[in-house]
Amino acid sequence: MADYEHLLVKQDGDTIRITMNRPERRNSLAEPVLAELTDAFESAGRTDATGIVLAGEGKVFSAGHDFADVASRDLGGVRSLLRLCTKLMKTMQSVPQVVIARVHALATAAGCQMVASCDLAVAAESAGFALPGGKGGWFCHTPAVPVARNIGRKRLMEMALTGDVVDARTALDWGLVNHVVPDDQLDAAVDHLLVRATRGSRFAKGVGKQTIYAQLDRPEADAYAIALEVMAAMSQSASAREGMAAFLEKRPPVWPN
Amino acid sequence: MADYEHLLVKQDGDTIRITMNRPERRNSLAEPVLAELTDAFESAGRTDATGIVLAGEGKVFSAGHDFADVASRDLGGVRSLLRLCTKLMKTMQSVPQVVIARVHALATAAGCQMVASCDLAVAAESAGFALPGGKGGWFCHTPAVPVARNIGRKRLMEMALTGDVVDARTALDWGLVNHVVPDDQLDAAVDHLLVRATRGSRFAKGVGKQTIYAQLDRPEADAYAIALEVMAAMSQSASAREGMAAFLEKRPPVWPN
Amino acid sequence: MADYEHLLVKQDGDTIRITMNRPERRNSLAEPVLAELTDAFESAGRTDATGIVLAGEGKVFSAGHDFADVASRDLGGVRSLLRLCTKLMKTMQSVPQVVIARVHALATAAGCQMVASCDLAVAAESAGFALPGGKGGWFCHTPAVPVARNIGRKRLMEMALTGDVVDARTALDWGLVNHVVPDDQLDAAVDHLLVRATRGSRFAKGVGKQTIYAQLDRPEADAYAIALEVMAAMSQSASAREGMAAFLEKRPPVWPN
Repeated sequence: MADYEHLLVKQDGDTIRITMNRPERRNSLAEPVLAELTDAFESAGRTDATGIVLAGEGKVFSAGHDFADVASRDLGGVRSLLRLCTKLMKTMQSVPQVVIARVHALATAAGCQMVASCDLAVAAESAGFALPGGKGGWFCHTPAVPVARNIGRKRLMEMALTGDVVDARTALDWGLVNHVVPDDQLDAAVDHLLVRATRGSRFAKGVGKQTIYAQLDRPEADAYAIALEVMAAMSQSASAREGMAAFLEKRPPVWPN
Repeated sequence: MADYEHLLVKQDGDTIRITMNRPERRNSLAEPVLAELTDAFESAGRTDATGIVLAGEGKVFSAGHDFADVASRDLGGVRSLLRLCTKLMKTMQSVPQVVIARVHALATAAGCQMVASCDLAVAAESAGFALPGGKGGWFCHTPAVPVARNIGRKRLMEMALTGDVVDARTALDWGLVNHVVPDDQLDAAVDHLLVRATRGSRFAKGVGKQTIYAQLDRPEADAYAIALEVMAAMSQSASAREGMAAFLEKRPPVWPN
Repeated sequence: MADYEHLLVKQDGDTIRITMNRPERRNSLAEPVLAELTDAFESAGRTDATGIVLAGEGKVFSAGHDFADVASRDLGGVRSLLRLCTKLMKTMQSVPQVVIARVHALATAAGCQMVASCDLAVAAESAGFALPGGKGGWFCHTPAVPVARNIGRKRLMEMALTGDVVDARTALDWGLVNHVVPDDQLDAAVDHLLVRATRGSRFAKGVGKQTIYAQLDRPEADAYAIALEVMAAMSQSASAREGMAAFLEKRPPVWPN
């Protein structure tokens, strides 16, 4: 694994754990942090790992953009920063690995956006979620994009307009996270979900995840046009053939990839 | 009603009951079964029936595609099979009748996709729902299309990536089914919902249902462009005129169609 | 505030309260009522108010279209009426103010559509929601547009096809409203949400709300293309600069607008 200034990245069996490690800055996303996170996800995406866990060190999961990094930028400078931030969110979705957010504490603004952009999320009871731009001077425009696609419209509006913190149980009820557990069970819950979500053919699952993001948010006929062609093509893969053969021969499959 | 090899189809008053009847194959969807189901829905769609109930005989609602039918197909053969499967799902939505899934047991892969594609669904407490491709070698790409449009993104990802079974109460909480009842009350609950959902003008409701599928998953302005024109046109129908006249004259309506 | 025949409109501090006042007609939306509501929202939108509360006087929040106004219209006449109705719904979303529905009682058809079209909604326990066209002769085609975008597909289908009333607690569970409170606490709950939702820069929040409606219901990449450009541009606003400066200088912000 590459060395990073603001991240801890380690390979743990088939899992790559990416931990934001700037607790004194509440894991805020200054440009160098965004660049390292994007690089870490792209690098992980090129490995044979089956899962990636995104976590944060310290008292906050991530506080989003770092105003010290934004305040002095002109329009071009902010656009460039937001493009990098959006690239990070899209990279999380385009890598073939299952990406799980491990949310132990507060996730706000682009920090909340990261949770919404991960495939799956597990939160500790102490976690909280907010889009605080709504009570400030710079609205959380881009964080609202994936958050809206995780929860309903009225709930998105309440988060975005009030800026208030939503607790973990409410986030679970709204579909922003998959599971909520007592704080001391967070790692076990993340690992349990990781095991369940990374079984089967790594190759088939990677294409599966990417195709879901391709078909979401489209009229159903358009979504079928995408999913049908991919599914037909994938039926000819070694993974699909092995899976079907194993099923029909009543033996455990041996995944070729 | 036509005779089918793999289905039981009967008219019961204003309701057509289509029951998959290949319990020894877990009601899996080999090509002849898909062809019969599509024909049965198309035929029902041409009748004056107001409702269609889709059910399954035996220990499983439907296990989805039949690997014995898929394993030996080349790309063209699988594409053709998936096109027929997608046509079935679209036919359920394009018939003017209210289509209710009666889910008494496990519905997996394309079986779960059928539940997601029905207008309404009632499940017994013993029912379960899964997209098992996520732990196999052939991902549930097309089943994920309507399932994603019934439940939230994080929940879809958990179903699609883990392949694990979601129980009926969870499916209710997530919006995949409308009601969950004890197993021995399933038929009563289906019929109760059917009565509520098939009142009023058959003609108006058929166009209503079809227009909803046309406007879903589009930007709101595009959806209004569709719904507004249909609603204006339908105001001139005999059904709308009778409904308004009956309301204004404080008498029960007599639907012309 | 202008004088209206069918509305009570008053400014209350930073809030404009628009109350439908045709209780003897169940606050139904005859053309003059729709015209007044649209004018009232457009006028409020041009003020410096930060919030708008939409309420109804009498035993019903709003019963939707007034059949006495619809029954005699030809196609062009109904289309014109529905265009005005749709314009009202879009106006609620395009004004910069936070718009909250105060739902004290039954909201049906276009009345339910108004609740779905407001940014936020608070309901009393006595409130109810229905799309009754499903059991009549004129289907609720346009009301189904925003209702579908507030709740899931299966739930929309149950409301639209049965026409039955959904109670306030169920509407909360489904995401059609943000909060449900005992009837005698409705005004306090509306005002509490209003305070939380109208803090911060009025200018930033107005653009924020409008951008959310612009990005909803689109593929995520399209949504980012919109939200990213707006967020970059807004970073240069006086509001954003003041917000960041205040944060970095650890002092309360003074919003320029």
